[in-house]
Amino acid sequence: MAEVKRVGMLTGGGDAPGLNGVIRAVTMKCIEDYGHEVVGLKRGWKSLLDPEQDTVMPLGVEDVRYILQEGGTILGSSRTNPYKKEGDPEKVVKQLEEFGVDALVAIGGDDTLGVAKRLHDDFGTQVIGCPKTIDNDLSATDTTFGYDTAVSIATDAIDKLRTTAKSHERVVVVEVMGRHAGWITWGAGLASAANVTLIPEVEPDLDQIASIFEKRAKSGEKWGLVAVSEGVTLSEEFMTQNAETDEFGHVRLGGIAETLAKEIESRTGIETRHVVLGHLQRGGTPTAYDRILSTRYGLRAAEAVNNGEWGKMVALRGNEIVTVDLSEATDETKTVPNDLYKAAETFFG
Amino acid sequence: MAEVKRVGMLTGGGDAPGLNGVIRAVTMKCIEDYGHEVVGLKRGWKSLLDPEQDTVMPLGVEDVRYILQEGGTILGSSRTNPYKKEGDPEKVVKQLEEFGVDALVAIGGDDTLGVAKRLHDDFGTQVIGCPKTIDNDLSATDTTFGYDTAVSIATDAIDKLRTTAKSHERVVVVEVMGRHAGWITWGAGLASAANVTLIPEVEPDLDQIASIFEKRAKSGEKWGLVAVSEGVTLSEEFMTQNAETDEFGHVRLGGIAETLAKEIESRTGIETRHVVLGHLQRGGTPTAYDRILSTRYGLRAAEAVNNGEWGKMVALRGNEIVTVDLSEATDETKTVPNDLYKAAETFFG
Amino acid sequence: MAEVKRVGMLTGGGDAPGLNGVIRAVTMKCIEDYGHEVVGLKRGWKSLLDPEQDTVMPLGVEDVRYILQEGGTILGSSRTNPYKKEGDPEKVVKQLEEFGVDALVAIGGDDTLGVAKRLHDDFGTQVIGCPKTIDNDLSATDTTFGYDTAVSIATDAIDKLRTTAKSHERVVVVEVMGRHAGWITWGAGLASAANVTLIPEVEPDLDQIASIFEKRAKSGEKWGLVAVSEGVTLSEEFMTQNAETDEFGHVRLGGIAETLAKEIESRTGIETRHVVLGHLQRGGTPTAYDRILSTRYGLRAAEAVNNGEWGKMVALRGNEIVTVDLSEATDETKTVPNDLYKAAETFFG
Amino acid sequence: MAEVKRVGMLTGGGDAPGLNGVIRAVTMKCIEDYGHEVVGLKRGWKSLLDPEQDTVMPLGVEDVRYILQEGGTILGSSRTNPYKKEGDPEKVVKQLEEFGVDALVAIGGDDTLGVAKRLHDDFGTQVIGCPKTIDNDLSATDTTFGYDTAVSIATDAIDKLRTTAKSHERVVVVEVMGRHAGWITWGAGLASAANVTLIPEVEPDLDQIASIFEKRAKSGEKWGLVAVSEGVTLSEEFMTQNAETDEFGHVRLGGIAETLAKEIESRTGIETRHVVLGHLQRGGTPTAYDRILSTRYGLRAAEAVNNGEWGKMVALRGNEIVTVDLSEATDETKTVPNDLYKAAETFFG
Repeated sequence: MAEVKRVGMLTGGGDAPGLNGVIRAVTMKCIEDYGHEVVGLKRGWKSLLDPEQDTVMPLGVEDVRYILQEGGTILGSSRTNPYKKEGDPEKVVKQLEEFGVDALVAIGGDDTLGVAKRLHDDFGTQVIGCPKTIDNDLSATDTTFGYDTAVSIATDAIDKLRTTAKSHERVVVVEVMGRHAGWITWGAGLASAANVTLIPEVEPDLDQIASIFEKRAKSGEKWGLVAVSEGVTLSEEFMTQNAETDEFGHVRLGGIAETLAKEIESRTGIETRHVVLGHLQRGGTPTAYDRILSTRYGLRAAEAVNNGEWGKMVALRGNEIVTVDLSEATDETKTVPNDLYKAAETFFG
Repeated sequence: MAEVKRVGMLTGGGDAPGLNGVIRAVTMKCIEDYGHEVVGLKRGWKSLLDPEQDTVMPLGVEDVRYILQEGGTILGSSRTNPYKKEGDPEKVVKQLEEFGVDALVAIGGDDTLGVAKRLHDDFGTQVIGCPKTIDNDLSATDTTFGYDTAVSIATDAIDKLRTTAKSHERVVVVEVMGRHAGWITWGAGLASAANVTLIPEVEPDLDQIASIFEKRAKSGEKWGLVAVSEGVTLSEEFMTQNAETDEFGHVRLGGIAETLAKEIESRTGIETRHVVLGHLQRGGTPTAYDRILSTRYGLRAAEAVNNGEWGKMVALRGNEIVTVDLSEATDETKTVPNDLYKAAETFFG
Repeated sequence: MAEVKRVGMLTGGGDAPGLNGVIRAVTMKCIEDYGHEVVGLKRGWKSLLDPEQDTVMPLGVEDVRYILQEGGTILGSSRTNPYKKEGDPEKVVKQLEEFGVDALVAIGGDDTLGVAKRLHDDFGTQVIGCPKTIDNDLSATDTTFGYDTAVSIATDAIDKLRTTAKSHERVVVVEVMGRHAGWITWGAGLASAANVTLIPEVEPDLDQIASIFEKRAKSGEKWGLVAVSEGVTLSEEFMTQNAETDEFGHVRLGGIAETLAKEIESRTGIETRHVVLGHLQRGGTPTAYDRILSTRYGLRAAEAVNNGEWGKMVALRGNEIVTVDLSEATDETKTVPNDLYKAAETFFG
Repeated sequence: MAEVKRVGMLTGGGDAPGLNGVIRAVTMKCIEDYGHEVVGLKRGWKSLLDPEQDTVMPLGVEDVRYILQEGGTILGSSRTNPYKKEGDPEKVVKQLEEFGVDALVAIGGDDTLGVAKRLHDDFGTQVIGCPKTIDNDLSATDTTFGYDTAVSIATDAIDKLRTTAKSHERVVVVEVMGRHAGWITWGAGLASAANVTLIPEVEPDLDQIASIFEKRAKSGEKWGLVAVSEGVTLSEEFMTQNAETDEFGHVRLGGIAETLAKEIESRTGIETRHVVLGHLQRGGTPTAYDRILSTRYGLRAAEAVNNGEWGKMVALRGNEIVTVDLSEATDETKTVPNDLYKAAETFFG
């Protein structure tokens, strides 16, 4: 292990509440416990291909002490991938040298960590990874930070919609984040007592959905809430069937929530609306859980830097934060297992 | 004034946080202070045209004591207007008699109160009105309940989006409720420090908007937030220009937020996204302000019932809740005056 | 009116959510609309008696753009009163000159504004006042900023305590801010559906309180919530009666909430606890309502500076922010009028 | 395993957010998946010694569907322990028979579960336990429900106090729940970026605390936050030294927060205040995390009932909910291990 002097840190890809918690913990531990110097590299991998005047951001203890409460990332981000263009990886390595960075902490999803892995393998770059995905769909780690916050925001939104759905005797279909895996939707559906929860892992059973609301209507409750992942799909035929012609004569296709809403209304006769939560789920202050989890990830990453555990990433296994090989970052998407979905089904109705 | 024995209450039209506060205050004051009996009539005017088994809902003090915290309305609602069909007004009057209702408290927007007014004028129905509109656009009253809650929800959403916008160096355009008047958007834009706020009362100046974000970008802040009312319009030509062809070959038109977002991105080169808040703004627990305001409205309505102030509605004038003629309910829409918009413009940038 | 070049601003006394909103609005309007220069003077009147290196804080538009969401005051505060010591007022005037401050905006309670008034009268100091008190007890203005936030925090706390009180069949007495006037307690008691609300303006009727809980217990609800202002008093004899001897042999007197709790338990036999909310009510992000109100106060203060309305203070009258003479700041405490308390009593039980 | 027909459920001891989640999950799974009948037994073990008219509460799916969002417990509670008095255990067993209860789910802390264990051992009572403690100090299970909510409430309170502490240049000492173990305080201190966190497991170092604030003051930050568990102790001598004489001539001893506050002020010269959070931490709606965790506990308890796993309790081990022997409920208190405290110390300053 080369003697570490200057630790560089970057955040890549979409943001997740808790990024600043990781940045803070890495910074404070590296400085206070190990005596290293820490600099932020703004805007993800782009910082090392196309540096700007503000790219290198020296980080001191007091610079980061109170960023824990802030969503987003003080280091900005980009979706730049150096491995997309020939010669770029070499540029990255060279730039790290020019910046005098001895160790790099890369915080990001499978793209960001995939790049970190390759730089380590191809050039021996001294890098530690920290996984980040609001979707909680990285096999490598049990729970990712930002997930709890996203679930909380979606849960709160569905709770808010309940009163209006009940008052107006409507069904409201809420589109929740989750393109490939339904973790956020599963969590929010469970925590909000949604009447039906639909995730990409399971094909929607339109008959089952309709009959749930018909049964509720028969017993006097002509309303309800559906939580559906954005990644749930129905056949193209079905989607087109439900398109409508707008006031300008254009045919307008809806998203999954809107399409499902029309289908539910047409099958059950209950007025149905839809809401798309979108980017709201990424933002705002992290929950206490995410502040603590991201802090723990960051502490272990700082330790890995100090130990020279290059080519590793931090991961939560049970109650422990450990290090595992960066290759695990690009493992299969972790989808919601069938038993957890069945557990949620107990509460449909 | 006939001796009042049984007070009926109904809520019509869209829901607004605070409806239960009115219901609660009318019920508790009528019973405890005046010794009247109170019944809820479920589902708005429909309750008197098409009564169901659960239409008449006896209300006691303990039934309503803790509904103050609940959004929505325990009396349900409908958009039914008895004056749409001949003979229906007579049916309503007859049904009120059959239910033994001596006095009716109608809580709703201009439609609901318009019906109340006509029943009073045409048949001498003993009715008191209480205005309700989340949009705060009733000339008759200074502030409507539910408005503060809607502004708070929209403000909180824009605050949440700020961190993600800043981290990703994007502009996010947020579509806020407000079809004819921009009160909610004005309030939320002001309270969330949005960089630009657009309301239906003022034609959007696309050059001004683009230049604000270009100026921010020049000074290193390549991001921002725009709050726009759903009722803001741009020319059909403009809307069509920004339509896109979807994966199925259909031309898809966006809403105002989506269209503006594309325009801003195309003019400034800054990545721009949009979010539509929709029904989230109607739901959930009312703010403390709305709980207090709705309670005050309800107390005065109960007093008006006891005094026999038929054909009146309660209204907030400055700091007092007074009664005014029900005809004021259907006065012009109260739009955001120019000086308040200019005040908001001070903060654009 | 002398030509205004440099506007100084200070905040004195206790903090209130919304102070930063005022600071922001004064700064942005003075700079953007009038071309004035703005400096903050840190730590209230102390800044002009005992300046430190960081006392003068130049304020630019981008320095304040996002402070609206923050509680507290970026200008710090002090309880220093220059009129307490001979020669100090002269020092203040001289220091303002040395700092090149042409116009002073003083944001504070009756102490701070009282000083502002005297400096204006005695020395012709060009000062504008902006009233601040979380207690909403300034006669001069209809509603002060920070009040809505304090009520919201107290309401939320009482709502939280309801579930635990009900589960354990206890009465919980909650001590809310309000030494001389019961506005916050009145508001929170009303908004939280507390079973009893006690304010300094009205002598507590212990028999009434006990009988309310006895009646609730008889009907199966052996629990409840009491909201009591810190400024409610009972006789010394009564307070001493309820003191207890601690584990070290010391006699320990409780506060009003604790003492009342013991009395209720002893009279009714229902287990009773107490909670003192304290400083929690001053802190945190202002509500949307307070952000808007404080912004409106600040805009009008900036206008008053530009107009040279020296010796005035801004005030809310109905829906308008106007200017009134600074002497009104030290008028009688505005207490909760009897009719508003009677309105609240409707809901006791 | 006798064929289960009627499942009884009770909740004992202090309440914790999430109890209703357990009750709901047990009820819905027992009824929907297994066809069992479920009744609630109100007021803990007291229900079986001193039954009242409302003690037995039949629970159907729709009775519990939406209680997930509610704090507290719909089954009430008591601190009654049948093993305190001779003959009472026999009464309990007899009463269970008379109520026709075949299987009992006991949700509570070590007292409640200790009784469950003994009834099983002494009489063969068919009982399943579910652990409950907001303090997260049961060795038997990795995380208890209600803990995340308590940490979130305390974190939010400390965040609120930060702005007022900073504005007034004060130190605020916040007393957080935790008599024997400092989990809640540790979590809240970490998540709120408190400058110092003190837990019962570690003797407070007053010199360290004072020097942290002196150092902050030297660098211009004359303020800060301290999170301290209620169970932290200092010597009697120390506590008495800091007692004060009240206006009635009585010597008044403070709690740990108040005493520490005085000590910090006297050592550093920085104005210091204290706040006791108390019962606020138990109440209100559970976080999404706690709703999900409590639901998972309840599902596994229902399964255990169906399987006849008598004398067991459900427990979280890593990511799995398993069953373990009820004897583990009364194992040693799980205190905060030294490495987690050291992790928190990284952030003191």
